[in-house]
Amino acid sequence: MEGLSKKIYLELSAPTEEDSRSDQQRILEALSAEGIEEQVHMPVHILRMIYPLVENAKWKITVSLGWNGENWEILDIEAGNQTGHHYGLAVDLGSTTVVARLLDCVSGRVVKEVSCFNRQIQWGTDILSRIFYCKDNPRKLEEVRQATVDSIVECMDKLDAQWLDECRAKEADRKVQRKTEECDNTEVDGARRGGASCREDSDAESITRSCVSMVVAGNTTMIHFLLGMDAFCVFYTPHAVHGDRPGFQPAKDLGIPIKGYVYCYPSKSNYLGGDIISGMIDTELYKKEEISVFFDIGTNGELVIGNKEFLLCGAGAAGPALEGGVVSTGMRADTGAVDEVKIRDGKILVHVIGNEDGEFQKMDSGNKSDKQEALKNGGKPLQIEAKGICGSGIIDLIAELFLEGWIDIRGKFSPEKSPLIQKKEGQWCVEYAPGLHFYQKDIDEFIRTKSAAHTMVEIMLRESGLELDQAERFYVAGAFGKHVSKESAITIGMYPDMDRDHIINAGNSSLEGAAKLLLNRALLKDIDQILEEMVYIQFAEVEDFLELMVAAQALPHTDFQRYPTVMKKIQERQAKKENVISIKNDINVKKIINY
Amino acid sequence: MEGLSKKIYLELSAPTEEDSRSDQQRILEALSAEGIEEQVHMPVHILRMIYPLVENAKWKITVSLGWNGENWEILDIEAGNQTGHHYGLAVDLGSTTVVARLLDCVSGRVVKEVSCFNRQIQWGTDILSRIFYCKDNPRKLEEVRQATVDSIVECMDKLDAQWLDECRAKEADRKVQRKTEECDNTEVDGARRGGASCREDSDAESITRSCVSMVVAGNTTMIHFLLGMDAFCVFYTPHAVHGDRPGFQPAKDLGIPIKGYVYCYPSKSNYLGGDIISGMIDTELYKKEEISVFFDIGTNGELVIGNKEFLLCGAGAAGPALEGGVVSTGMRADTGAVDEVKIRDGKILVHVIGNEDGEFQKMDSGNKSDKQEALKNGGKPLQIEAKGICGSGIIDLIAELFLEGWIDIRGKFSPEKSPLIQKKEGQWCVEYAPGLHFYQKDIDEFIRTKSAAHTMVEIMLRESGLELDQAERFYVAGAFGKHVSKESAITIGMYPDMDRDHIINAGNSSLEGAAKLLLNRALLKDIDQILEEMVYIQFAEVEDFLELMVAAQALPHTDFQRYPTVMKKIQERQAKKENVISIKNDINVKKIINY
Repeated sequence: MEGLSKKIYLELSAPTEEDSRSDQQRILEALSAEGIEEQVHMPVHILRMIYPLVENAKWKITVSLGWNGENWEILDIEAGNQTGHHYGLAVDLGSTTVVARLLDCVSGRVVKEVSCFNRQIQWGTDILSRIFYCKDNPRKLEEVRQATVDSIVECMDKLDAQWLDECRAKEADRKVQRKTEECDNTEVDGARRGGASCREDSDAESITRSCVSMVVAGNTTMIHFLLGMDAFCVFYTPHAVHGDRPGFQPAKDLGIPIKGYVYCYPSKSNYLGGDIISGMIDTELYKKEEISVFFDIGTNGELVIGNKEFLLCGAGAAGPALEGGVVSTGMRADTGAVDEVKIRDGKILVHVIGNEDGEFQKMDSGNKSDKQEALKNGGKPLQIEAKGICGSGIIDLIAELFLEGWIDIRGKFSPEKSPLIQKKEGQWCVEYAPGLHFYQKDIDEFIRTKSAAHTMVEIMLRESGLELDQAERFYVAGAFGKHVSKESAITIGMYPDMDRDHIINAGNSSLEGAAKLLLNRALLKDIDQILEEMVYIQFAEVEDFLELMVAAQALPHTDFQRYPTVMKKIQERQAKKENVISIKNDINVKKIINY
Repeated sequence: MEGLSKKIYLELSAPTEEDSRSDQQRILEALSAEGIEEQVHMPVHILRMIYPLVENAKWKITVSLGWNGENWEILDIEAGNQTGHHYGLAVDLGSTTVVARLLDCVSGRVVKEVSCFNRQIQWGTDILSRIFYCKDNPRKLEEVRQATVDSIVECMDKLDAQWLDECRAKEADRKVQRKTEECDNTEVDGARRGGASCREDSDAESITRSCVSMVVAGNTTMIHFLLGMDAFCVFYTPHAVHGDRPGFQPAKDLGIPIKGYVYCYPSKSNYLGGDIISGMIDTELYKKEEISVFFDIGTNGELVIGNKEFLLCGAGAAGPALEGGVVSTGMRADTGAVDEVKIRDGKILVHVIGNEDGEFQKMDSGNKSDKQEALKNGGKPLQIEAKGICGSGIIDLIAELFLEGWIDIRGKFSPEKSPLIQKKEGQWCVEYAPGLHFYQKDIDEFIRTKSAAHTMVEIMLRESGLELDQAERFYVAGAFGKHVSKESAITIGMYPDMDRDHIINAGNSSLEGAAKLLLNRALLKDIDQILEEMVYIQFAEVEDFLELMVAAQALPHTDFQRYPTVMKKIQERQAKKENVISIKNDINVKKIINY
């Protein structure tokens, strides 16, 4: 694989009177003979380690090369053939969670993936608090930088610990095997070598520290913090950030304990960071004939629309209602969060994270949760109680309320539709889980979010001279794409009403793009191309943004014709309940929402 | 100047809503607009310093760029226009002496040059002792490495101290001037800024630490030690050294306190080091139509012969008799060393280092030095007494002994020719200064050295298919070239008998070549070309080396026809003394030396 690192086994000829080339030339020429066409730089610490290592290794060595952006650099020399032991790290530096993936650079296989909280959280869950914490204060900025690096190192340590555990388990297996196979020496030797890094009598080798290259994808603020740059610029107008193309930096200059270079994905602008560029690399949107929409919905929504001929991008506040802290009982997608909601026969059924998949808790009208009942029910383990609701739960809930007719097209409660709709603290609300209420203002807040998201897509398509139905693929990145029900998101008009198979959960495309680049150096050119082609649309400068957003502030949209399958679904659901609400035409609807 | 570093003043436009490029892009694009065509890398420590420096400087900054071998790297950002303050360092890393030259990279002017002893001397004046001291001992190797770096840093400190003294003197002058010119404010402000680095109330800026680039030229062993590589390989057969193309290394990786990169001149082979390659760059031998000989005579003799079409090189033990320790009263060219010798009217006249130029001390037959006489003579200061004889003194002495006929063509004393020739410890000798004797074995030793040197030149020319008289230039590098009398060196057959103007004292060509490269990056290509073109001749493999060397073991040579002007000189000198020795033909001479 032509990745960002290489390990090459060389069998060098020993110097003779006739061939008195220097060790350095001997190695460089052997690399060239192995097909390395680029300049290879040998840093002084490698010059120092040549002797006596190479001689002791009887001139059979493995050279680790790391790409520094323009050339190869020799970053390690090991005795013997160590090409099978070649790993790299891809990191998604999220503002909440840092995910690190250990890749086998020989096979491209994912060896292991771990995550940890971003230690910046100590200065606030929202990015702005962190920015203000260290703004214009180099000492505090250094604290934040260190915490960022520590988060990555924590992931590396986790990977190492898991790796070591596995090695020890394998070693134990081998010991058993050795006893039974003592006659077959070759086999035993092979096993011993393979497990060399895990022998209890030697210092355990760290697999992450043996990595040559790391690719990090993160938003503009995260990368500023990782590199130790003040990030107030990201939010300050004019939005000129300090650094947007960090490229390859020596890992040691960043304080990251790997052997070679750390590549940070560049950002297009303050709000369109390296995580999105990495997502482009992952989805290959920029290479396709068909037009795709790439949407990353978090605190901000980042959006890219295009194909191999054009790329438009933009960002806006599209996701806040889906985060904890905006909706009154909103929380992160963590244990105890309601992440799925169904309404069946007038009852709200919720799934709580931590419980088994498909295990729903019922919320009857006025009843407490049937936890006790579940307990008795066949001796199943105690169910985890709901503590709040996360993004996917919110979307499910609103979609179901809408399909059931408990809320109208404007998202307003119709209290007559269910006894579960109550008035609390002067507002209508529904108790979706014991003691947990979803209020009218929560719905209103959410509708603003979803209409912003919808409007962003609409504007971007319009800027490209396209209609909504001309986008053939709709990629949804991040946790949102992973957990949210497509059906619900379409029902409430967050996603366009399109072929469900063309709505693609891009997963952690930031991490995926980082991993792809780690294994394929040629993508660096693609990144340059993406940055060059991308045109950033300032939504603030779009004159009719607010107008379009108001039009989108209905469920699923004031223009019902955009959502034929939703219309059908409503009719079906209502028909089932023999309580059909006739929706005659969108003109009537427009009247309704023009309140 | 297109040197290894650049300082460029940029007046950037501040970010606006319309132009929200990152600070990084703003700087890089401005550099591109200034004509920087190559890739410019911005390391993380520079990304970190952009804010608030650039903003505070009102977007008027000076960027320091250092060449890293393939690209530019930004190594400093300063507020305002600092392009006038742009210096670099050239270092000749000699095994005895380290010379450092501070260059003004704007004008190319030599600001200052200092030297110090190579601190490796603590482990022996000869290189081999040092090599054996740390052979296969990483801890001791680190000591030697550190001592090497410390020698360079000592030179840097000396440069800084001298610079600071001058600044203070200038500042004092300015203060006086200021008082008399108090009305002219502009002038005073200008002076203040210029002297900012020397103000006593602020931390004195170090001029050497402000340098971006350093070029070091040294022999293969010196460069191994500077980089921390075991150097036993230099003397061990097969002569495959560990590293011969160190290229550009970050100064901080070498422990040298400058901002950017240190370039070490590459070596061609174990005995043909970077100092010689640097000498090539200085003399431009590889560019010339005419054929030149480049000779560096020290403990070893290194030799290059060629022109723009070919380059032959070789090295051999050509100089040991000129060093302290071989000749019985030999010493370095230091205070107290006899460095010039004349014989006039049967008296030996010597010049001693430390006395005024042209001030000779007489050595009469049987008399003590006329020191007392000199003291009385017009109240001149006390003369420094001779303590030994250095290389140039030895060559002068042997040449004069030969011209006077006190030694014969084989270098054997003719005791009847002067009462100054005495027998001491069973050997003939001459007392060249009070209590200091030059023995027959010293002469014999020297003749072996000079015949080796002569033979090397002869063989190299022969290998090029050339006669001795086809070399049009004879460059003599180092202290030898600087101090040795051309006339004497020709007389004894060390130099060829050629137009004196074509024998060129190349001085410290190692340092000069380092300085030239510092100021002219294009020479890097020339260095590659030189290394590629150079063919190394192993003298040990030349079959008739010993035969030729025996033929050269006469004064000036068994083949007198090679030395017409010497023949003429002998005749003149002898005629003057009315004591002509008839030299009929070289056949007779050959008989004489075939003893």
